[in-house]
Amino acid sequence: MAEPLRIGIAGLGTVGTGVLHLLETNRALVRARAGRPIEAVAVSARDRNKDRGVDLSGLRWADSLHDLAADKDCDVVVELVGGSEGDALDLARSALSAGKGLVTANKALIAHHGLELAGLAERHSAPLKFEAAVAGGIPVVAGLREGAAANAIERIYGILNGTSNYVLSEMEASGADFADVLAEAQAKGYAEADPAFDVDGTDAAHKLAILAAIGFGARIDFDGVAVSGIAEVRASDIAHARTLGFVIRLVGVADCEAGPSGSRLLQRVRPCLVPDHHPLAHVTGATNAVVAEGDFAGRLLFQGAGAGAGPTASAVVADLIDLARGRTGHPFSLPVGELAAMERADPGHRVGRDYIRFTVADRPGVLAEITAAMRDAGVSIESLIQHGRAQDGGEVLVAMVTHEGEERCVTRALELLSGASSLTAAPLVLPILRD
Amino acid sequence: MAEPLRIGIAGLGTVGTGVLHLLETNRALVRARAGRPIEAVAVSARDRNKDRGVDLSGLRWADSLHDLAADKDCDVVVELVGGSEGDALDLARSALSAGKGLVTANKALIAHHGLELAGLAERHSAPLKFEAAVAGGIPVVAGLREGAAANAIERIYGILNGTSNYVLSEMEASGADFADVLAEAQAKGYAEADPAFDVDGTDAAHKLAILAAIGFGARIDFDGVAVSGIAEVRASDIAHARTLGFVIRLVGVADCEAGPSGSRLLQRVRPCLVPDHHPLAHVTGATNAVVAEGDFAGRLLFQGAGAGAGPTASAVVADLIDLARGRTGHPFSLPVGELAAMERADPGHRVGRDYIRFTVADRPGVLAEITAAMRDAGVSIESLIQHGRAQDGGEVLVAMVTHEGEERCVTRALELLSGASSLTAAPLVLPILRD
Repeated sequence: MAEPLRIGIAGLGTVGTGVLHLLETNRALVRARAGRPIEAVAVSARDRNKDRGVDLSGLRWADSLHDLAADKDCDVVVELVGGSEGDALDLARSALSAGKGLVTANKALIAHHGLELAGLAERHSAPLKFEAAVAGGIPVVAGLREGAAANAIERIYGILNGTSNYVLSEMEASGADFADVLAEAQAKGYAEADPAFDVDGTDAAHKLAILAAIGFGARIDFDGVAVSGIAEVRASDIAHARTLGFVIRLVGVADCEAGPSGSRLLQRVRPCLVPDHHPLAHVTGATNAVVAEGDFAGRLLFQGAGAGAGPTASAVVADLIDLARGRTGHPFSLPVGELAAMERADPGHRVGRDYIRFTVADRPGVLAEITAAMRDAGVSIESLIQHGRAQDGGEVLVAMVTHEGEERCVTRALELLSGASSLTAAPLVLPILRD
Repeated sequence: MAEPLRIGIAGLGTVGTGVLHLLETNRALVRARAGRPIEAVAVSARDRNKDRGVDLSGLRWADSLHDLAADKDCDVVVELVGGSEGDALDLARSALSAGKGLVTANKALIAHHGLELAGLAERHSAPLKFEAAVAGGIPVVAGLREGAAANAIERIYGILNGTSNYVLSEMEASGADFADVLAEAQAKGYAEADPAFDVDGTDAAHKLAILAAIGFGARIDFDGVAVSGIAEVRASDIAHARTLGFVIRLVGVADCEAGPSGSRLLQRVRPCLVPDHHPLAHVTGATNAVVAEGDFAGRLLFQGAGAGAGPTASAVVADLIDLARGRTGHPFSLPVGELAAMERADPGHRVGRDYIRFTVADRPGVLAEITAAMRDAGVSIESLIQHGRAQDGGEVLVAMVTHEGEERCVTRALELLSGASSLTAAPLVLPILRD
């Protein structure tokens, strides 16, 4: 029998426990597909006495993450500590520097330090894998890195955060507003007690930056992702969108566009209006879906559970099976030295359509002021919705969808309206997802 | 610079030309991702003089497929000849026996001879890859073999034939009947002059058998696929389905079920009623979509273009990049000797719901005869549609959806009705896709 692949697991939360559970449940199958056994030999976690529902009796407890990274009997460290800095980063650096493989589900770590870690991995011939860091159990890292490898990727986009998608789907189904749905989701355990990273778009931005780096063969640029979350989306926006043939989803979009001195990268996470006929319009609940558009493959869609112990463990162990088989490869599809340092694109010249919702005073002349600003900025209005008088005291909404035009024109129109007495709150602009 | 991977292409139809076009267009990118150049060095095709729109000047023309398989300067043969026997099979056998890699887009070849070829590949340490044989450009072979490798797969199903899906979508959109839509699709070039393999389910069955073998780690069993095509589906069935909240799709389903002496395999390609909320219900046109249900990953969906020169070339070159990188692996995910010889399951005991459409005489007592047979066979009716009198001379349709029950009961009911004077044609049974 071939030598086992010996792994040390850092962090025994739901995912760490899930990995142990998977290795136990599917032991024979994993061994057959890996060509040799994959054995957890050591763990590190804060609490040794907690009942996690899996058998930990055969495992060595490392006294510290440092010990785990230095453990001569571990071939691979599975990092499930979390967080982009501190313990997780120290562990990743020391494991790779020791020539150990590193498998991680930590999207923040890779989004912030992926390039450095890939460099370390390369210098120490230590494999680095992070399938579980993007879209849970969906094999989209491999799908991009290998499945779509023959393609120039033109655009990558998707629904990358399950909690946000759950909240938006529930708002859609119930007609309730964001705060109420979020509170209910928290009560049910579908959203974290602190849901900021999920609903403000940060988590989706982590994943988008990773996908863009792999798909475009670029140096990861998390700070280059423009992010807005879903907290400003109201039940009435969802209702307006439906009237117009759209649903609202939090979508991360990475575009690779030609520039005078090489390709430029545009990365944005924003709530978007998605046309009813688009596959992403039918992605409801805590599901993730990623679309990659290749010059030969066309539009590829990968969809599945974006989080949870089982799906994440599935992705972690898929990486371990790859390592056991010797399928390592470059973390971002190319050697670090060949990854492009892509300039950030300025979105102003991009052509698209927008949904714009204004909160306006309930008095004559308001529509005239708004439409004059649109005209003066060169924004052409395709459709407009205004629902008579305010139902419950003062606030009236005006929603419109623009014809195709440069983004700078909408920005200009909103500048013209800035401080206008007609508006009682800042307008909300949601782009319409290009088909 | 690393040595190039030298390939010989057998067959220069749309796909072969597409592969050359891709290697030319994305030369730098393919070389970077493969770690070395991938160079077409030889070709074999019937007509040397045809203008194919790609530069063939640097390529050696092999006088025969036999010469190509024996060409010492080729590392890999790309088989795009087509057909499950004859030339394609001879070429595959001789290339693998000569220790060459074989990359093929030929689903019929793999469905019929995959096991033998995988055995040859193993004995001669020659890699065999066929991503392009299943669902065109969608990396579903890799998705199952590697991405979902940690999972026990419980069910694999999907829309595996683009032409059938195009025809059914058009019937849905236009209300026209099968023959009319097919004729139009042929006129537009969306369907072959001889569309039999597409619309009778054979092509989908080839792909299903391959997916099942990979997903379940089983010896491929194409002859074990029960197949029925879409020719019997009428516009009125689609209308009935819509009334009941379903669309009709040609779906291949492979189930792995526990039996007394090991797992059993049930493989069927049939037009099915797909609930409106299911992702497959929104797959329209010539698109393919594959769902794999894993015990940890849950439901994974892979969707994209199932055919065409670009997508197929994308999959062929993805395989070539894998070979250039030394990522070979077992064609069916396990060594041939470890692939399970799964018994075929008898579907009679399976529990499900069906749509049944009867073509009946326009006279009293018909419904009584049908419903009595249902009662006597133990079939419980959930809903029933009968549209008054025949509109255009005699033929009346009665459609029903059953409650959950064993398949044998529906079979028994139809036996009881066999030869009944109420029926003017054989009934059509379409299963409802289990969610």
